[in-house]
Amino acid sequence: MERIIDVRNGRNLTMLSDFYELTMGNGYFENGVQDTIAYFDMYFRKIPDGGGFAVMAGVDQLIEYLENLTFSKEDIEYLRRKNTFSEGFLSYLENFKFECDVWAVPEGTPVFPNEPLVTVRGPIIQAQFVETMVLLTVNHQTLIATKSNRIVRAAGGRNVLEFGSRRAQGYDGAIYGARAAIVGGCTSSSNTLAEIMFNVPATGTMAHSWVQLFDSEFEAFRKWAEIYPDNCSLLVDTYNVLKSGIPNAIKIFNEYVLPKGKRPKSIRIDSGDIAYLTKESRKMLDAAGFHDVKIIVSNSLDEYIIRDVLSQGAPIDIFGVGERLITARSEPVFGGVYKLVAVEKDGVVQPKIKVSENQEKITTPHFKKIYRVFSKKSNLAVADLICEHDEVLNEDEPLTLFDPTYTWKRRTFTEYYLKPLQEQIFKSGELIYKSPSVLEIRAYSKKEIEKLWPEVLRLEYPHNYYVDLSQKLWDTRQNLLIEQSQQYAEDKY
Amino acid sequence: MERIIDVRNGRNLTMLSDFYELTMGNGYFENGVQDTIAYFDMYFRKIPDGGGFAVMAGVDQLIEYLENLTFSKEDIEYLRRKNTFSEGFLSYLENFKFECDVWAVPEGTPVFPNEPLVTVRGPIIQAQFVETMVLLTVNHQTLIATKSNRIVRAAGGRNVLEFGSRRAQGYDGAIYGARAAIVGGCTSSSNTLAEIMFNVPATGTMAHSWVQLFDSEFEAFRKWAEIYPDNCSLLVDTYNVLKSGIPNAIKIFNEYVLPKGKRPKSIRIDSGDIAYLTKESRKMLDAAGFHDVKIIVSNSLDEYIIRDVLSQGAPIDIFGVGERLITARSEPVFGGVYKLVAVEKDGVVQPKIKVSENQEKITTPHFKKIYRVFSKKSNLAVADLICEHDEVLNEDEPLTLFDPTYTWKRRTFTEYYLKPLQEQIFKSGELIYKSPSVLEIRAYSKKEIEKLWPEVLRLEYPHNYYVDLSQKLWDTRQNLLIEQSQQYAEDKY
Repeated sequence: MERIIDVRNGRNLTMLSDFYELTMGNGYFENGVQDTIAYFDMYFRKIPDGGGFAVMAGVDQLIEYLENLTFSKEDIEYLRRKNTFSEGFLSYLENFKFECDVWAVPEGTPVFPNEPLVTVRGPIIQAQFVETMVLLTVNHQTLIATKSNRIVRAAGGRNVLEFGSRRAQGYDGAIYGARAAIVGGCTSSSNTLAEIMFNVPATGTMAHSWVQLFDSEFEAFRKWAEIYPDNCSLLVDTYNVLKSGIPNAIKIFNEYVLPKGKRPKSIRIDSGDIAYLTKESRKMLDAAGFHDVKIIVSNSLDEYIIRDVLSQGAPIDIFGVGERLITARSEPVFGGVYKLVAVEKDGVVQPKIKVSENQEKITTPHFKKIYRVFSKKSNLAVADLICEHDEVLNEDEPLTLFDPTYTWKRRTFTEYYLKPLQEQIFKSGELIYKSPSVLEIRAYSKKEIEKLWPEVLRLEYPHNYYVDLSQKLWDTRQNLLIEQSQQYAEDKY
Repeated sequence: MERIIDVRNGRNLTMLSDFYELTMGNGYFENGVQDTIAYFDMYFRKIPDGGGFAVMAGVDQLIEYLENLTFSKEDIEYLRRKNTFSEGFLSYLENFKFECDVWAVPEGTPVFPNEPLVTVRGPIIQAQFVETMVLLTVNHQTLIATKSNRIVRAAGGRNVLEFGSRRAQGYDGAIYGARAAIVGGCTSSSNTLAEIMFNVPATGTMAHSWVQLFDSEFEAFRKWAEIYPDNCSLLVDTYNVLKSGIPNAIKIFNEYVLPKGKRPKSIRIDSGDIAYLTKESRKMLDAAGFHDVKIIVSNSLDEYIIRDVLSQGAPIDIFGVGERLITARSEPVFGGVYKLVAVEKDGVVQPKIKVSENQEKITTPHFKKIYRVFSKKSNLAVADLICEHDEVLNEDEPLTLFDPTYTWKRRTFTEYYLKPLQEQIFKSGELIYKSPSVLEIRAYSKKEIEKLWPEVLRLEYPHNYYVDLSQKLWDTRQNLLIEQSQQYAEDKY
């Protein structure tokens, strides 16, 4: 939470809530069950783009939301006019104080389907109400961080700049999308507000309109070089890259940058066949002695195009990635869900399940914790293990994991260690966690992703990372499933 | 601008700008050309999803942005620390006053590729600076309004509810996405904040968690009906729609709603085969005398699934559409661009062109105006005509239109009338336009879309609506193109 200016100040997002959270809240209240302690898990079922993992993001914004959860007098007035809510419920909202426990997987962590990224425990009226914003916040940023990391991996160590504000889905799409892109590994964003909010350098040079405004490309470049000799970066594709842009750039570098004792920085190509144009441009720049001038490209890029042009040997130093990153264009939905998994009765946690005709929509019940299992030999992660909240694991004993569907598929680990994945964020409504800075998260993420097997990192058809249930949790789930299915045992059709 | 509470108050989006708008601004300033009068057009090149038209949206938010364009002391301090900008430029920003003229196509209007949706005229330092937000605002809302209208058309008169907040790309994706969904024809949104901001009824009932919380589905339904007898809508798919959900719902309607002299409202199905389940559910409800109980479905719907299940005769009354609408999942980018088209020199407007090796990326130069041409006989729109700003058309004379690429394709109209498409929004920086309410925009949009030929309304492979250039504008463009291309006349490869 290192932002310089909090532009969210004054914006109350409490009412950014599906209306049914409120009708249910009123329902809980009117039935006197509002204080029943409930457990909700936020998790997802499918990794976007057929990838091997997702990159958790959005926890800091979730914290901001939960810390600022208050219903204004205007909100209460508005709700009263709906003629739907009891005065008792409205008065409860007026005096609302967040009391839940919240656990979350830290931002930047690689995460997998069916494990709880966020767990909320508290009075059901509260734990239910926050559903919309928990999902909206984590779904969006995790989507973009995951996409960003795919693109950054495709770029193989080259810098990737986030360029997509103008095509984002709304202002926050641009702002928090830029944040998530940095979490996923981007070097910087073109969005100035993102620098102000997240302290990540904003970068940018010129548009075609700069070049068009002047009487010639040469004059436009000259005007630029005179003002920015320290950081001279020229956009060379307004007219013709090889016949005009690069020759003009070289002339400008020689006549207006070198004489000041500076080195020019880069040229940018934003159209045309970037493999061909960058190769020819590189030759021309090198021949003119500008081996150190970087080539930036930026034309509807994504991880697939980047991989392709690099495999063709395109000498690109920096990628500017816009709309396909900021909207996760190839798969623009992160399908996180928020499900009731347990309630407390007389202080005892009772697991709850939601069945479905669709196997993958059946929930994993209970208040849980997750461990990442590491091999001592490789220090790489071999699986995640989801347990019931009160299970005690002994790292000195062998650990047998099994596939939750094909349960005969088993592996036993002896040389391993465990790392809990979730951290507690709120305790009885009090924030007990300090978010790292965005740059710290990016560094952490890189480190954690390096602990995955390379097979999991493939962009397409990666190895399926194992997310297993403990025997105890598997039994709990199985028993609840049998109990439910026996009620509707006849054939449907 | 009928919002009840302006939650944007206090949020300054001035710095939501690509950094290069600022480096260019400083460049214009330092070169003394900052007051050169420039013209920029915002337009798009391709209709999403292969549709026949897009639905213009976002003007009201663009107005809010332009009216609030100010650089705070903190912004100036931040910029000073970048060591990139001159004190003169910073002082200009500190005293910034928006002075541009802005024209826009009114929200809800069906629009087509290559026509200026927004035109900005003013000192280049200003007209350039607003680029990022003009694009971000109009791209996002036009994308969602266009998708919403596709879904609404597929639903053929049935109500469509926007349900997607939890899967939106950021908070504004949910808020302004809901607004745009309404512009496109949705009946309501589940987003409570959207009602507060845009005065469009928020709706919603219960989630599966409500049903899971109680000891049985029947009890959960009973508790609900007791609180909401006036508006009893039950989610019937938590356990088994036909064996449990519908039978329980009917029992509840009979025992807890009818006795209060009320009629139950609806049932909702959120999983399974919705064609089969709705048919069977309808039979059961009808047999029990509940012909008037509506069936709502809501499971990963879009225009294609809606069209399919309706063609199978699924008796669905209301569609709840979530992630595929709020993210325009099938094509989540609206590719609007913002291009310099003219500058004034000694008070004379000089057209500017941006060429490209990619034909479709060549701009249409000049300060322009657009007319929609209507047939007097059918009152339907037959084409849009883009002219130079000072052309005078006489509706009493025949009008010959021609294809701008295949110029031998010609049509002459005699019985026609013209309607200008853009309206002026700002005059020398002063707002001179009053935005209609969102519901007024929705009604206007419906009316305007009904003026298109049915062939243009097809979801797939629609008729290509004509967007033509006047002879004068075509000649201007042609001459500039020839001039440019002669400079690089040799073969490239």
